[in-house]
Amino acid sequence: MAARCLSVPSFEFSRILRISWIVGILVHTTYVFIKSVKESVKRAPQKEQNEQTAPQVLFFPDKLLACRQFLFEGGCSRRHCQFAHEETSLSKLIRVLLEAKQSLDVCVFTINCRELADAVVQLHNDGVVVRVLTDDEQMGSTGSQIEKFRREGIQVRHDLSSFFMHHKFAIIDRKQLVNGSFNWTRQAVTGNRENVVITSDEGLVKAFSDEFQKLWEKYDPCRRTQSGVL
Amino acid sequence: MAARCLSVPSFEFSRILRISWIVGILVHTTYVFIKSVKESVKRAPQKEQNEQTAPQVLFFPDKLLACRQFLFEGGCSRRHCQFAHEETSLSKLIRVLLEAKQSLDVCVFTINCRELADAVVQLHNDGVVVRVLTDDEQMGSTGSQIEKFRREGIQVRHDLSSFFMHHKFAIIDRKQLVNGSFNWTRQAVTGNRENVVITSDEGLVKAFSDEFQKLWEKYDPCRRTQSGVL
Repeated sequence: MAARCLSVPSFEFSRILRISWIVGILVHTTYVFIKSVKESVKRAPQKEQNEQTAPQVLFFPDKLLACRQFLFEGGCSRRHCQFAHEETSLSKLIRVLLEAKQSLDVCVFTINCRELADAVVQLHNDGVVVRVLTDDEQMGSTGSQIEKFRREGIQVRHDLSSFFMHHKFAIIDRKQLVNGSFNWTRQAVTGNRENVVITSDEGLVKAFSDEFQKLWEKYDPCRRTQSGVL
Repeated sequence: MAARCLSVPSFEFSRILRISWIVGILVHTTYVFIKSVKESVKRAPQKEQNEQTAPQVLFFPDKLLACRQFLFEGGCSRRHCQFAHEETSLSKLIRVLLEAKQSLDVCVFTINCRELADAVVQLHNDGVVVRVLTDDEQMGSTGSQIEKFRREGIQVRHDLSSFFMHHKFAIIDRKQLVNGSFNWTRQAVTGNRENVVITSDEGLVKAFSDEFQKLWEKYDPCRRTQSGVL
């Protein structure tokens, strides 16, 4: 009887120990499992974001100028069209610009490329808020598209300085930045060695948006003094 | 007796089941634990890499030209120095260039800024392999530093074209890219509105390194035809 009395608590204790151990393992497994699932869910959108921000580079010159009909009307009716129907650096750049849904800020030294100007006018006519900053001396140069922009009602501002407003960047919907050595000229498209980097890096987009806003306010015609100096 | 014979296998079976279950949980727990540790180890350097690749932007003009003594000798002995001793966009750019340990590839339309040229020469004298690509017409312009580079034994190549070799980029140790609207001129430093983006994005560095190598080979003087056209 004494032996039986001793054996019962020993059995109970061993059983409780075993149950606690199993419950502990179960709780730990569940914890680790839930944690790993949560982390993988967290990582998924981050990966997607990284993919979105991967920058793209376009190098110029293009061998041929992109066909305007092909670019803006989706097809070309000419039998022997001399312009490019395949993708070129210019056509890629124009497609990126045409992605704008709300705003397009253009800050370019000189603009005489009609294809790029047409894309800007199309966006303006589609209701996108377009602002253009440029260099005062380049505005009057041969083939400049600035006068066309103004005729179409696009807001344009320029410096008043013997130095250059030499930037060559654009910001699309405050989400994408286009920047590089590339002026928006025909010579840059089919002649020069040029580059354009397209990025959605948030830090870069913000820095260039701030620079644009700073210059936009600085070149406000209402803020000009009588001597014209800003 | 018959009852005892039946109860033994039932007890054995239940025991084996319990043991298998516990072993299964143990193996699974160990697997999940090892996997999560491995993933966290993998993520750590990736995070570090992301931090390294955060791009930097420099905007010009600087209010003052950076003091050369301050930049290259670590201090200025002049009492009333008219140049900048605080950090400027130019001084930051020069410090980035001076980080080069093995190679510096410069591909810039026009170079007449002595401060930038001095940094390039210093790197060359320190044993860094420096290569310079530039525009043929700009080489002869007032203040061009290209002749100095050649005197110092730096390898220089240029296009032979009526179009512009209009890039403005440099690659440091094939790890960092410097690119933007900024020509390496004094006017660009203290006069113009300009930008320089400094990035270690692997895709961008590779794309620009490939472009540099392509042009370096294309402008090899040994490959020129009699007419001089490349």
